[in-house]
Amino acid sequence: MQKHIISALVVNQPGVLAHVADLFSARGFNIDSLAVGETEQPDFSRMTVVVAGDEAILEQVRKQLAKLIDVVKVQDFVGVPCVERDLALIVVHAPAGRRSEILELVDIFRAKVVDVGPNDLMVELSGTEDKVEAFLSLVRPYGVREMVRTGRIALARSVRE
Amino acid sequence: MQKHIISALVVNQPGVLAHVADLFSARGFNIDSLAVGETEQPDFSRMTVVVAGDEAILEQVRKQLAKLIDVVKVQDFVGVPCVERDLALIVVHAPAGRRSEILELVDIFRAKVVDVGPNDLMVELSGTEDKVEAFLSLVRPYGVREMVRTGRIALARSVRE
Repeated sequence: MQKHIISALVVNQPGVLAHVADLFSARGFNIDSLAVGETEQPDFSRMTVVVAGDEAILEQVRKQLAKLIDVVKVQDFVGVPCVERDLALIVVHAPAGRRSEILELVDIFRAKVVDVGPNDLMVELSGTEDKVEAFLSLVRPYGVREMVRTGRIALARSVRE
Repeated sequence: MQKHIISALVVNQPGVLAHVADLFSARGFNIDSLAVGETEQPDFSRMTVVVAGDEAILEQVRKQLAKLIDVVKVQDFVGVPCVERDLALIVVHAPAGRRSEILELVDIFRAKVVDVGPNDLMVELSGTEDKVEAFLSLVRPYGVREMVRTGRIALARSVRE
């Protein structure tokens, strides 16, 4: 099933998130990822939801979202040229003898080491879903101890004539 | 009011997000940011919530969160040495004549240009809250046309003896 990245500009107040979450869960949609953060306007937040599911039902959810009083605008990025990014913090098992191998991967992916312990490295990596997945598949054999990801955010590209 | 970064490891299934959102909104807490993404275990997601509010009520919310059947672990990062990061995509008004000034800022902040239009640049920036805010305060005079942020994620630092 195709994944949809749905972006909603919402009024920044208690309860909005609960309303939106209810809309999806009432239809049994599992949200792949969700990111809610500040926008260029202090009174608004932008929610970016990644979800896969039946097209017709998703279209209903989108319409219902747009009807919520606190939702200002809803956009689905399917078919829209956009930049999408995800940020991950990943703790990789890295005893001294294997550290340099992992650091090579960090360099290749233009990731950053943000913490070092006696036996592990914490890596910060941002990029497309594919890039993050590619890095993970390469470090998994060393052991991924902990990981947190923001979920994807997206913005439409500038239109060129 | 001090901001709390609360991280919850949750079972990846429909409805969990709605439950958590309800807990906060029922007490009138406005969520500053929320990020829900994959973890090192495929069946679990990690939710990172940034929230400010009355300490005593927040402690209640934390306890109730931990009691939810789909919530495996709850951690508050207040007072815990941790790495925290936020990712932003920012479209800055940048006509050709001012582009180089903005590119200088992009370099200084080790941000990346991810899209270019005739009159604007899309910049990808990750870092602490302070870093993102500092960059924003410098580009705001040029005009911030659009912005989307993931909200903060955090992981505890490795403990050193």
